[in-house]
Amino acid sequence: MSDITDKTPLGLPCLRIDALAKVTGQARYTDDIPMAGMCYAKYVRSPIAHGFVKSIDYRAALEIPGVITVFTWKDVPDIAFATAGHAWTLEPAKQDVADRFLLTNHVRHFGDAVAIVVARDELTAEKAAETVVVTWDELPVITSPKAALAVDATAIHEGGNLLKRSEVSTNNPQAAIKTADYQFSGNFQTPIIQHCHMEGVTCFAWMEQPDRITIVSSTQIPHIVRRVVAQALDMSWSKVRVIKPYIGGGFGNKQDVLEEPMAAFLTLKLGGIPVKVLISREECFFASRTRHAFSIDAHLGISSEGILKGFELDVLSNTGAYASHGHSIASAGGSKISWLYPRSAYGYRATTAYTNLPSAGAMRGYGAPQVVFALESLLDDAAAALNLDPVDVRLLNAAREGDINTLYNRAINSAGLIECLKLGREKFGWDERKTACLQTQGDVRRGVGVACFSYTSNTWPVGVEISSVRLVLNQDGIVNLQSGATEVGQGADTVFAQMVAQTMGMPFNMVHTISTQDTDITPFDPGAFASRQSYVTAPALREAAQILRQKILHHAALMLHLPEINLTIINGNIVLETRPAQTLLSVADLAMDSFYHPQNGGQLSAESSFKTQTNPPTYGCTFVDVTVDIPLCKVTINRILNLHDSGRILNPILAEGQVHGGMGMGIGWALFEELIVDEKSGVVRNPNLLDYKMPTMPDLPDLECAFVDTYEPQSAYGHKALGEPPIISPAAAIRNAVRMATGVAINTLPLTPKRLFQEFVDAGLIKG
Amino acid sequence: MSDITDKTPLGLPCLRIDALAKVTGQARYTDDIPMAGMCYAKYVRSPIAHGFVKSIDYRAALEIPGVITVFTWKDVPDIAFATAGHAWTLEPAKQDVADRFLLTNHVRHFGDAVAIVVARDELTAEKAAETVVVTWDELPVITSPKAALAVDATAIHEGGNLLKRSEVSTNNPQAAIKTADYQFSGNFQTPIIQHCHMEGVTCFAWMEQPDRITIVSSTQIPHIVRRVVAQALDMSWSKVRVIKPYIGGGFGNKQDVLEEPMAAFLTLKLGGIPVKVLISREECFFASRTRHAFSIDAHLGISSEGILKGFELDVLSNTGAYASHGHSIASAGGSKISWLYPRSAYGYRATTAYTNLPSAGAMRGYGAPQVVFALESLLDDAAAALNLDPVDVRLLNAAREGDINTLYNRAINSAGLIECLKLGREKFGWDERKTACLQTQGDVRRGVGVACFSYTSNTWPVGVEISSVRLVLNQDGIVNLQSGATEVGQGADTVFAQMVAQTMGMPFNMVHTISTQDTDITPFDPGAFASRQSYVTAPALREAAQILRQKILHHAALMLHLPEINLTIINGNIVLETRPAQTLLSVADLAMDSFYHPQNGGQLSAESSFKTQTNPPTYGCTFVDVTVDIPLCKVTINRILNLHDSGRILNPILAEGQVHGGMGMGIGWALFEELIVDEKSGVVRNPNLLDYKMPTMPDLPDLECAFVDTYEPQSAYGHKALGEPPIISPAAAIRNAVRMATGVAINTLPLTPKRLFQEFVDAGLIKG
Repeated sequence: MSDITDKTPLGLPCLRIDALAKVTGQARYTDDIPMAGMCYAKYVRSPIAHGFVKSIDYRAALEIPGVITVFTWKDVPDIAFATAGHAWTLEPAKQDVADRFLLTNHVRHFGDAVAIVVARDELTAEKAAETVVVTWDELPVITSPKAALAVDATAIHEGGNLLKRSEVSTNNPQAAIKTADYQFSGNFQTPIIQHCHMEGVTCFAWMEQPDRITIVSSTQIPHIVRRVVAQALDMSWSKVRVIKPYIGGGFGNKQDVLEEPMAAFLTLKLGGIPVKVLISREECFFASRTRHAFSIDAHLGISSEGILKGFELDVLSNTGAYASHGHSIASAGGSKISWLYPRSAYGYRATTAYTNLPSAGAMRGYGAPQVVFALESLLDDAAAALNLDPVDVRLLNAAREGDINTLYNRAINSAGLIECLKLGREKFGWDERKTACLQTQGDVRRGVGVACFSYTSNTWPVGVEISSVRLVLNQDGIVNLQSGATEVGQGADTVFAQMVAQTMGMPFNMVHTISTQDTDITPFDPGAFASRQSYVTAPALREAAQILRQKILHHAALMLHLPEINLTIINGNIVLETRPAQTLLSVADLAMDSFYHPQNGGQLSAESSFKTQTNPPTYGCTFVDVTVDIPLCKVTINRILNLHDSGRILNPILAEGQVHGGMGMGIGWALFEELIVDEKSGVVRNPNLLDYKMPTMPDLPDLECAFVDTYEPQSAYGHKALGEPPIISPAAAIRNAVRMATGVAINTLPLTPKRLFQEFVDAGLIKG
Repeated sequence: MSDITDKTPLGLPCLRIDALAKVTGQARYTDDIPMAGMCYAKYVRSPIAHGFVKSIDYRAALEIPGVITVFTWKDVPDIAFATAGHAWTLEPAKQDVADRFLLTNHVRHFGDAVAIVVARDELTAEKAAETVVVTWDELPVITSPKAALAVDATAIHEGGNLLKRSEVSTNNPQAAIKTADYQFSGNFQTPIIQHCHMEGVTCFAWMEQPDRITIVSSTQIPHIVRRVVAQALDMSWSKVRVIKPYIGGGFGNKQDVLEEPMAAFLTLKLGGIPVKVLISREECFFASRTRHAFSIDAHLGISSEGILKGFELDVLSNTGAYASHGHSIASAGGSKISWLYPRSAYGYRATTAYTNLPSAGAMRGYGAPQVVFALESLLDDAAAALNLDPVDVRLLNAAREGDINTLYNRAINSAGLIECLKLGREKFGWDERKTACLQTQGDVRRGVGVACFSYTSNTWPVGVEISSVRLVLNQDGIVNLQSGATEVGQGADTVFAQMVAQTMGMPFNMVHTISTQDTDITPFDPGAFASRQSYVTAPALREAAQILRQKILHHAALMLHLPEINLTIINGNIVLETRPAQTLLSVADLAMDSFYHPQNGGQLSAESSFKTQTNPPTYGCTFVDVTVDIPLCKVTINRILNLHDSGRILNPILAEGQVHGGMGMGIGWALFEELIVDEKSGVVRNPNLLDYKMPTMPDLPDLECAFVDTYEPQSAYGHKALGEPPIISPAAAIRNAVRMATGVAINTLPLTPKRLFQEFVDAGLIKG
């Protein structure tokens, strides 16, 4: 906090503004907020994955002291709603699929909700929910998209089990592949995983007036929650108010409107008393959202020199029981990878099917990790087969400034992938390590791997990209910053303050970001997703900062009797542009005058609402060095390095933190995590943090990262996305390193000892 | 809520927007808001009214389980601060007197605070505070200003006991009085009373970050609380955040910064845990604020026809132990009355002295009830002596449009006092009643009385009058309204919504006022006092509404491909100005487009911060008919009618509610209420609602009121103040009626049986 004299806050490692509140425990999260008279609601869930309720008997629950009431599927509105946290669109064809009711008698996954018990305390609610007796008419359980799409498959939803199919291509990829020197193909499989955010799914609601519902929720998307709750309850949108306090992670799971409609429904039915919907960690695994399992058939054609002539991906995505983000994820994966090797022909087909698994939704990377795993694995196999260096192959094909993404006919204005590869090769010592790895033999062998990715900086042009900001000058010269863009741990609040400080000429610690969003008052923004926050909010921040700066200069001109045009703000002081060293007036003194001068001034504020219509790609790659103990079927990461082109880096320590988090999640997805669902019954076998193996600190190597210096001209401050990208490439790089070490190309994640065992047996490395 | 089709909301009896929340109990007040980990603080107070702490022993308190700590005067910052809720001024000479510390070893009134105990629960805090043993060096107790100003009086504060003296006059009043046909004089005395708001004084504070304090308080003045807390703790102002939830009355007591600095200090010392300062109803009587007792020497000169030639008031005001609003009140009383009879010469002297009484502060009317009681009593005595009708005398002298207030050289643009008197005379049946009263004889007699008042609409030019407003258009077309002006029960939120609806062309129920103020985000406004809310906020509301309306029309022009200039908004729909019956587009549909159109629009919002530099007078009068039972010394009100010129009436039912409340308080002040302080010891004898007689419903007659139709051209919507005026004139009217009934001119309030007994004995009506 000692950087009051910072002259150019952008690009500096400013301490994140919520750091102290979080480490001291002063930050209050949703569950830290009590309400007088709060009641608690617990779902009655199905033990089966597919079927109808035959009967339900909750008389015993009602007898328990402290139980207020029980609602079943019969009591909820007959309104289907969509839960996906996308910006709204007025085009019906683009709207998310509305296939959810608050409760259902047609259960579609293990743990689907048929009733809910409300009680005066948590324990009573839980115990009472257990006493509800439900009998079932079971239906066939479908767990794979292939089975779901079979002609005679039982329909999970009225419209059938195909959620959506889509296809895009450019430059006739099939012909390009066919006419290339070499062709390679493979099928790649990725697992179901869960976000495992530290703070669980939680929300509560009450009524502040007979026609107004307030919801406090741990959400990434307060304004979208408002909309979806209103849609689910058929209310006027602004009658719902959503407040987002500090949040302990979301990673896309909280980009879905999960329990807020139920909380709102309950308070509405119960005369406005506060009701909290209780969701345990276990329920979070099967009743919130997961990452989509993809099965990808990949094909590529490549020249003998390593020039990628064409590639095709054919994705089969398992969205589980309800649509949620559904096909958007499979579709987005294909879009986001299209920026990687733009001079190659490219084809992408995707099919998303319902099954009786827990619903898959948004998760960091949004389809890109899956497709990158397939492409970057297959490309690596091709390089190996052609005896080409994996880095060289990527350098040959990587996107360059001036390339055109012909899928969208959009030019690439900044592309640092080649610099990432070159810097990584050097920093990592790729060539030396590769040489060393290729010499290892015996049971314990080393390998190095590399993988690249591309991603984008928001959802435009698919989504309307709007962000809004309000700035207010306080009497002490400190500028309060309100934005609808939500801090979800990524550091958005901090870089927002840096941007405003930069544009206004203020020290960083004179900008105070209001971290809580409240849809009644917070400027509109759909929320934190798609790595959009810093990119999309920046123009609104910059515009508002310019307006406020000009208002300050206008008042300074009045006070100083100097022409406004001669003045500027440097480091919180009004100076002559031509004599910047001499302070004429501090912004703090100016603020006091503006508030309290008998006639002049007023409260100086500025607001901007900006629709972004650019969406530049961001790039990067992972270099990894692994040791594989073949008899133990164990992969150890010796070194891992991510390199990123995210344009101008706004805050290097926050950027590093983002990359570390993403790499950790990427390693988890590559080596450890998998939600295990019984193929026959659809029962989730490991819905807890003991049986579901998330990597913890001892499981992870040192996480290294570096950034290359690019500047994106479409961006308000030269920067591009960085939130999701770090998770994308580690898995393919690790898989490629394992192949280099062992010669075994494993196309199914995660690379657990169990899977390695099977693969190594199949490859004849060990005996079964 | 069925008035969605209202075409011109202003002037209609719209249901107050918080009515349902309040009657259903859904409205949450400060004490309805729990905090995890909240602790409770209880003061250790002095049983003496003047002296020094000799010793203090709190070891026993620290031994009690649940006690966290004890702070004494030794532990608090050595910073004197001013508590008065005035808008800040940059002129040191105009700033309020800073004579308070958080705790003191020099106690100056019964119940002054020397220490504070913090415990984990309320009961423990209370019990522990009782165990603290304090020994005292007593000092002489001074309870009257006269004694305080004696040459040899013990100094209550370092600078002596004279807080301030001031004098204003116009047109040589002494000469005017002297040369008039008749002269009249009298001394008038008013009691100490307490506000007795339903919701007590309460607040709590916690830290949301290591350098930021948040306070939730039942206050009229959140932005001023922020400033004073920061001053008291030597913090940067914007590091303090004040939130005002619903409030259960204030009447000026909560226009003082009472306990918020202590709550902030405690959380700051205790690492940010939430701490609530406990103030009981009893403590409220002696440790919050009271209405100043005035002793007024009044003189007037009048012609035989009843033309007031000059009047002089010489006020001695007892401000008690600490300055609080201090001399401002005595001074304001003289200013506010100067608009009543502006063609008369006028002189006003005021002296405010410290005593060892509880501190007096702001209370509804702010000095005006006291001075009006003196002037309107003396004028009535003069009329009686000259055998002139009391109404006629006032009609002769009352302010008229075009008169100049020569004290300020400001013209009167609207003056409905004569209309009030004429309408009242007729509605009340003054002449018939007077005739009937003059015929009553014996022990039980009737009298009628009348009294007039003038008041102003804010604090300009003494205070900087600023108000700020932000409007946001929601997706459903509903406009959210944020204003720093605080709803304190007066209905401000409702008339604000009416004003915005009126200017924008929206139905009333499509404007949603955000009732909670939060100084981090709410547009700046000093708060609710001086009857300023509707007058001072109106221009900011109107400007913001015009801006938002224009933004809507701009977007409508884009959507409709019609010239913006052709369009207007009527009843929530876009229409051609020339064909208003044909709806082209609803504002709700337009809002959706503006939010979600791929390129155009955005979130439409508007903000205005406006400094008002006008302050028109408001007028009115009370007619009352009383029966006096002379042997029982009992006054019964047969009928009472207030008439008001408050310019255009914005909402007749809210206006009527204001008048009823004020009349009830005025009757309490006239007949019942008095805080009794032992003259020698300074001990408060009746600090509770049993021994302090506040009128309740059975004690009050039907309260009637009427408004005259004027339009103030300086006002944004033609209206003027109405919050405080209704309390001003009832007391003098009642006193005048009692004089007419009994012939006894009682110049000391309240007219309790005890006082009437003494007066009637002195007058020979009954035997002592």
